[in-house]
Amino acid sequence: MLLKYQEIAESIENHIRDNALKQGDKLPSLEQLVTEYKVSKSTIRKALELLESKGAVYQLRGSGIFVRSLKRPGYIDLGFSRGFKKDLGEFEMTTEVLAVEVRAASAEVAANLNIETGDAIYYIKRLRFIYGKPLCIEESHYDKSVVPYMNKEIVKDSIFYYLRNGLKLSLGFSDTYFNIGKINEAESKLLKLEVGEPALRLENIFFLATGQAFNYSKTTYNYEESQFFIQATSTD
Amino acid sequence: MLLKYQEIAESIENHIRDNALKQGDKLPSLEQLVTEYKVSKSTIRKALELLESKGAVYQLRGSGIFVRSLKRPGYIDLGFSRGFKKDLGEFEMTTEVLAVEVRAASAEVAANLNIETGDAIYYIKRLRFIYGKPLCIEESHYDKSVVPYMNKEIVKDSIFYYLRNGLKLSLGFSDTYFNIGKINEAESKLLKLEVGEPALRLENIFFLATGQAFNYSKTTYNYEESQFFIQATSTD
Repeated sequence: MLLKYQEIAESIENHIRDNALKQGDKLPSLEQLVTEYKVSKSTIRKALELLESKGAVYQLRGSGIFVRSLKRPGYIDLGFSRGFKKDLGEFEMTTEVLAVEVRAASAEVAANLNIETGDAIYYIKRLRFIYGKPLCIEESHYDKSVVPYMNKEIVKDSIFYYLRNGLKLSLGFSDTYFNIGKINEAESKLLKLEVGEPALRLENIFFLATGQAFNYSKTTYNYEESQFFIQATSTD
Repeated sequence: MLLKYQEIAESIENHIRDNALKQGDKLPSLEQLVTEYKVSKSTIRKALELLESKGAVYQLRGSGIFVRSLKRPGYIDLGFSRGFKKDLGEFEMTTEVLAVEVRAASAEVAANLNIETGDAIYYIKRLRFIYGKPLCIEESHYDKSVVPYMNKEIVKDSIFYYLRNGLKLSLGFSDTYFNIGKINEAESKLLKLEVGEPALRLENIFFLATGQAFNYSKTTYNYEESQFFIQATSTD
């Protein structure tokens, strides 16, 4: 269930997409949006702030509201956690589920999920393909006290869709860490790369809106099939 | 010159740092902050929104305002463009300036800066070191119509400091693209890596607050000396 300002934000995003608006294109003014959507100024302001934080628009005091858009399709967004579906929606993606099991949290997993070593977690291992080529190996750890049930059907599709719509969880924010290394023996087999070739290793921690960590993931990308982008909404 | 809400945001950030507050620690309520800073509710709200967009706090309706913080020092922030000074401030960083010259924009540079091929740009090439080890090679292209003057002294220090405080430019937002490849001959010499070793290649486009692109940079990182993080303020 979306709140009113979220609905309006989505409607403005659709307007930008449907009209193929480009970076720098001017949107209707705050006043015009108030008239169009028949809501208060503060609701429109909240919708615009949400769009600004998502890097979809920028506001220039005294001048108006403008479109922000990325020129390059096919890049995976690391700055706004929305899953592959949105970034690579136009590409043919498939998933092979390698493991779905309840485990005891290792010290590393426990530290990242802020739970105790030995606490129950769901361990999910998936291999993702783009046009049939291996894109990444993903190992996810879900705090079982937050996500009490999972199965192969669920993890073959979008886990986040299940969390939102099945478990009615309110997802919050995420931290991403990454570094570059070399492909090891196990990765080499799954990603069809030589040992020693470049590897992008990414770690994600996802938090509920309450600030509680619920998912710690490690993903190794095939450098030949992946490229990434990040939008920053301000400079400091 | 900071606006009042920016000053308050900075003051709250200092409070978090000086008291070494951790993720999940509760901050004073909106009402308490109004009393403390003697400003309107809407000024405090703007300060909190700024901090939220920077990933420094998160707000939970009905519960309060909480600290967001990263556990891992020494990571370069790609989600919020603030330069090495803030991320690696505790490390010993040095810069070798390899080129500062006015050039005609190539087709690639022109496309990214939204100018015409052949327009004048400042081309800056720098090699950055961390504790004396090569960290990255950076090639920057500045639209000369926005940045009419640069020299070796300026680019040896913080260029963004000069843009803000010397040229009084109002910086806006940035787009970052990256992919992983292999070190080439030229990079190998500067970064002291073997040809074929992993390379992180990053492209940045920086925009003024008006939405005009002013800087297009390409940076190749030494994978042995660098690690990165990105904070996402929401999930979609």
